[in-house]
Amino acid sequence: MATAKRHRSARSWRRSEKCSTAFVEIFRQESVNLARLLSLVFILFWKGFNVSLLVVGSVAFDSIRTPYGQAEMIPGGSASYFAVTASYFTPVNVVAVVGEDFGEQHLRLFQGRPIDLSGLERAPGKTFLWRGEYSSDMNEARTLETQLNVFESFAPKIPAAYLDSEFLFLGNIDPVLQLHVRKQLPRARLAACDTMNFWITGKPAELKKTLASVDALIINEGEARMLSGADTLRRAAAGIQSLGPRIVIVKRGEHGACFFEGKSIFFVPAFPLEEVRDPTGAGDSFAGGFMGYIARHGNTSEAHLRRALVYGSVMASFAVEQFGLERLLRIERQEIEERFQDFKAMTHFDV
Amino acid sequence: MATAKRHRSARSWRRSEKCSTAFVEIFRQESVNLARLLSLVFILFWKGFNVSLLVVGSVAFDSIRTPYGQAEMIPGGSASYFAVTASYFTPVNVVAVVGEDFGEQHLRLFQGRPIDLSGLERAPGKTFLWRGEYSSDMNEARTLETQLNVFESFAPKIPAAYLDSEFLFLGNIDPVLQLHVRKQLPRARLAACDTMNFWITGKPAELKKTLASVDALIINEGEARMLSGADTLRRAAAGIQSLGPRIVIVKRGEHGACFFEGKSIFFVPAFPLEEVRDPTGAGDSFAGGFMGYIARHGNTSEAHLRRALVYGSVMASFAVEQFGLERLLRIERQEIEERFQDFKAMTHFDV
Repeated sequence: MATAKRHRSARSWRRSEKCSTAFVEIFRQESVNLARLLSLVFILFWKGFNVSLLVVGSVAFDSIRTPYGQAEMIPGGSASYFAVTASYFTPVNVVAVVGEDFGEQHLRLFQGRPIDLSGLERAPGKTFLWRGEYSSDMNEARTLETQLNVFESFAPKIPAAYLDSEFLFLGNIDPVLQLHVRKQLPRARLAACDTMNFWITGKPAELKKTLASVDALIINEGEARMLSGADTLRRAAAGIQSLGPRIVIVKRGEHGACFFEGKSIFFVPAFPLEEVRDPTGAGDSFAGGFMGYIARHGNTSEAHLRRALVYGSVMASFAVEQFGLERLLRIERQEIEERFQDFKAMTHFDV
Repeated sequence: MATAKRHRSARSWRRSEKCSTAFVEIFRQESVNLARLLSLVFILFWKGFNVSLLVVGSVAFDSIRTPYGQAEMIPGGSASYFAVTASYFTPVNVVAVVGEDFGEQHLRLFQGRPIDLSGLERAPGKTFLWRGEYSSDMNEARTLETQLNVFESFAPKIPAAYLDSEFLFLGNIDPVLQLHVRKQLPRARLAACDTMNFWITGKPAELKKTLASVDALIINEGEARMLSGADTLRRAAAGIQSLGPRIVIVKRGEHGACFFEGKSIFFVPAFPLEEVRDPTGAGDSFAGGFMGYIARHGNTSEAHLRRALVYGSVMASFAVEQFGLERLLRIERQEIEERFQDFKAMTHFDV
């Protein structure tokens, strides 16, 4: 019995030893898996809470007249259009300046959306004001009045929490400020900027430095020609690429947009609306859709960039349906997806 | 034996009877098949030799100045551009008029191609002449001189052999003449026409009658707005569709073209060339590629129409690479297919 017991206990010990070895082994493996799991959870949390899309631009009051009506002192500006649009895809941090006249009722527009306004500075004085009108050819605005106000001495201050933003959009502001911001985010995976005739002719040397520092330029067609001195789209894009940005996106108003990266070219039309009520902010909404989609997926492969361009055109088409931010503030997710599918139906053909 | 023989012969007779019945049956079936085969061969022959695409338009001399140079008295006109382009896809019949100055050396341009000129009338007097120039914005020509000459009294005579054409393109001529031709080809499966501001303002009632008689209008964007009185592309197309044509194709110059049929919309960009040397004839080359592809396949399904539109844009892009018909006269089949594939690469995206 004793022997039998000993044997049993020896077997049992050996079994127990085996068990504990196996347990240790499982634990060792599981702890590796657990470590992996924990780091994944940490990354997901970190990604979830770490807003990685930053826009620096203007928050303004616009007074707009179009053949469909007019609006007085409505909130606008490149950063506003960009942030509201991109917020349908990903959280957005905003760096901009407003004056004392930009009240709580105006700030409320951004509430209830993943838009962080801790970089929105309030300065003594009045908010930047733009007054413009469109004739029946909605492709170009005629500026009636520009009051820079607090924007005149705007020096973008990037909150520390924004400094590791992976995606950056530099709205159409002084190229000196654009470069100043760009330099503070050297690790951004995709930095894009916009510019206009005023800076092309007014600060060409400064603009060239900014262009040399960004990955992408998103620019109107006429200004792409002006900047490059080239007459065809293809030469204009190549000319701009030689200044720095590897990606050139030419906005063509009602004719859509065209994308150039290396030898690759991609066209996206503008959505053919029955009525265009106010084209203000279409370009920044395009950029918001484009950058928002990229930041959401954290992927800059060409397949993603192409889809992002289509989302850009989708969002621009909503922007122009009503005055100012009106339509952009009440889009349903499903409407965005439906219009995205419409773009496929309007552009694809069987070979 | 005799009985056995009789039996055998009876069996043999019965077998032979069965055989002959079977043979008759097979012959009967085969003759049906043969009849089918013969009719198929006949149809193929008939289709092969029966040219079913007809263009009625102008054959002219053009004097053109662009930022890239100038050309004096080179052959042009809507029917010339259309015929040369469409001839890459299918045989084409031409109805037009030239003067005594349009010599053998000019007619040689059409030789060696499946272009039938038996409908090209030679009238006493001079050939239609157009003199125009383009500024650096190549999108619009400035007309410096127009001499109608023999075109002034042009009354298109459709040769009897052309009267059963299945596909018809009415180039940009007097809508009264367009309707006159259209009425002579009531069985055409697809009749398309072009028009311009001159007729929209000059002969609106006559133009409306022509539009009510065609399946498709191929028109410049500005003229589509002028004709419809609408400001957006979508409303312009709907307005034109209400006048008759179920298909509206809006040519947008360097921005490509847009197609409307029922609820379906399709965009094709213009090929982004490094250099556009002479935009003359781009619209008619577009129409030639479009109608040529359709006539080649004899199919007007939407999938075919979309591919036809891409071929239209492909051919227009070749047209503008050199002055006049120069480039169009020396395209390789492979170049056309390569550019067609380029269009797919420039427009498709994964959903």
